[in-house]
Amino acid sequence: MSMDRLLENIMRKQNPTVAGLDPKLSYIPEHIKARCFAEHGKTLEGAAAALLAFNKGLIDSLWDVVPAVKPQAAYYEMYGWQGMRALSETIAYAKSKGLFVITDGKRNDIGATMEAYAAAHLGQTDVEGESFEAFGADALTVNGYLGTDGIDPLLSVCAGRDKGIFVLAKTSNPSAGEFQDQMLHAMYEPLYRAMGNMCQQWGLKLPGRYGYSGVGAVVGATYPKQLKELRKALPNTIFLVPGYGAQGGAAKDVAQGFDRHGAGAIVNSSRAILCAWQKEGCDPEDYAGAARREAVRMRNEIMAELGGISLPV
Amino acid sequence: MSMDRLLENIMRKQNPTVAGLDPKLSYIPEHIKARCFAEHGKTLEGAAAALLAFNKGLIDSLWDVVPAVKPQAAYYEMYGWQGMRALSETIAYAKSKGLFVITDGKRNDIGATMEAYAAAHLGQTDVEGESFEAFGADALTVNGYLGTDGIDPLLSVCAGRDKGIFVLAKTSNPSAGEFQDQMLHAMYEPLYRAMGNMCQQWGLKLPGRYGYSGVGAVVGATYPKQLKELRKALPNTIFLVPGYGAQGGAAKDVAQGFDRHGAGAIVNSSRAILCAWQKEGCDPEDYAGAARREAVRMRNEIMAELGGISLPV
Repeated sequence: MSMDRLLENIMRKQNPTVAGLDPKLSYIPEHIKARCFAEHGKTLEGAAAALLAFNKGLIDSLWDVVPAVKPQAAYYEMYGWQGMRALSETIAYAKSKGLFVITDGKRNDIGATMEAYAAAHLGQTDVEGESFEAFGADALTVNGYLGTDGIDPLLSVCAGRDKGIFVLAKTSNPSAGEFQDQMLHAMYEPLYRAMGNMCQQWGLKLPGRYGYSGVGAVVGATYPKQLKELRKALPNTIFLVPGYGAQGGAAKDVAQGFDRHGAGAIVNSSRAILCAWQKEGCDPEDYAGAARREAVRMRNEIMAELGGISLPV
Repeated sequence: MSMDRLLENIMRKQNPTVAGLDPKLSYIPEHIKARCFAEHGKTLEGAAAALLAFNKGLIDSLWDVVPAVKPQAAYYEMYGWQGMRALSETIAYAKSKGLFVITDGKRNDIGATMEAYAAAHLGQTDVEGESFEAFGADALTVNGYLGTDGIDPLLSVCAGRDKGIFVLAKTSNPSAGEFQDQMLHAMYEPLYRAMGNMCQQWGLKLPGRYGYSGVGAVVGATYPKQLKELRKALPNTIFLVPGYGAQGGAAKDVAQGFDRHGAGAIVNSSRAILCAWQKEGCDPEDYAGAARREAVRMRNEIMAELGGISLPV
């Protein structure tokens, strides 16, 4: 089970955090950009080459500290197919270093179309009997608004190929509540909770060795009360927790998402890691060192809250 | 305003339908595949070349009948960056024929990340002062589960570049109701209606010449009662209507989505058009002719319900 691999990575490294790879051009040091633009011109190709080089440097520096990376698809898509190639190569490189890769795509659709997304990001694509991994992540974030018809096609791919999904439940943004906090008349609970309950239910098809299924949920660090409530209500659902740091979630907030073993959640940080060199004001050549220092700082801050991480057996 | 262009296209062609470009390899005639695999091998590259050739043939045959095409991103993404290149080239080719292009991506995220999706699909990407259109559609389908933080970044791009969005309200699939039909306690209305109401509100920022804003809604043909209800409740929201044909929606069902001028909605058909040659059993070399015959049949069937289409002034 894919989430088992994630949990094992987390325990081995005693670090329940994931480095978000959301590489904006403005985060990338000049020496990398200059080299890539010299080779490819100021083009989408040049930009994509810069993203990939930046990511590889980060991965080389982070692979033994963090258990996972989370590339955000949007930042690659905006550079066209050239950017999508950089996404694919980033994922392959991260996996070659033993990192668990969560593609943050928030994909959603139904039936055969959702099967196509599942093939794209978690499965294989068949071309006349030959099989190819298009993007090949270990897990994918998805949006469950369309209901079970949008989730079932993923579950069969996950089961067959040891992959997982994270379904948006309570997102970290200020307007998340517009829909997600609406109380549902029939269920006497808010929409995010109903979505969380469905994660538990969908997860029954993908049971895991450590009590956590292959269907996780996204729950924002900016809503610690709901994080605590959902942790209690959804004992078999691992949480991907955005919103730590820049968005306002503190270590004591994210601690609400963990179980008594210090397991059950993974906390994302993107900008604070990617832009650490700018904040530190260090030599841009040392951007990856700065990223590592921030990743270690974040790990230490969260681990101080948790004490340690063990896996329930 | 982008939806103005769509409405004008619909009126000029007296055809309120959109051809979905969801090209599975199994829909593509052997002579196209054989040529592409001979040139590129049985690879993602070869598959992507086949998708593009298939689409170009369809567009050449459909451009003067239908006002718009709707490529479904998933079917390109599953062929990796090579598939995404075929998506980009399909969109450019369709636009060169005067077609309005709706990319069906159901994208969703917040803030700067949603800005990246907006740049990718509707806007331009800046590379050190040079601007590029990554995918360059006229409209994008989006999922509103994250609330206004996920929509606002699109609206500014739409306003500046004459583009539009379609937000999922009531989708066409059987399990759509799991969340979308839930009655919201505070609002005394179901979630899909609340989403629809927000489309009206978001649309205030993108008013259009014919009464329809730049924020449309996706409402399935398989739920004609809700289609009728929403048509009445959301006078400034144009509907993208999936689920006609194969999924069970009939012409009299989709007619519920139109206003008294015969405007206000566009009905999608994908498989029935793409696979018309297989259903007809015609010469595979004539696949595009079969697609055109099906598109004309569909237009006539729906226009028989509507009578004619005029634009409110």
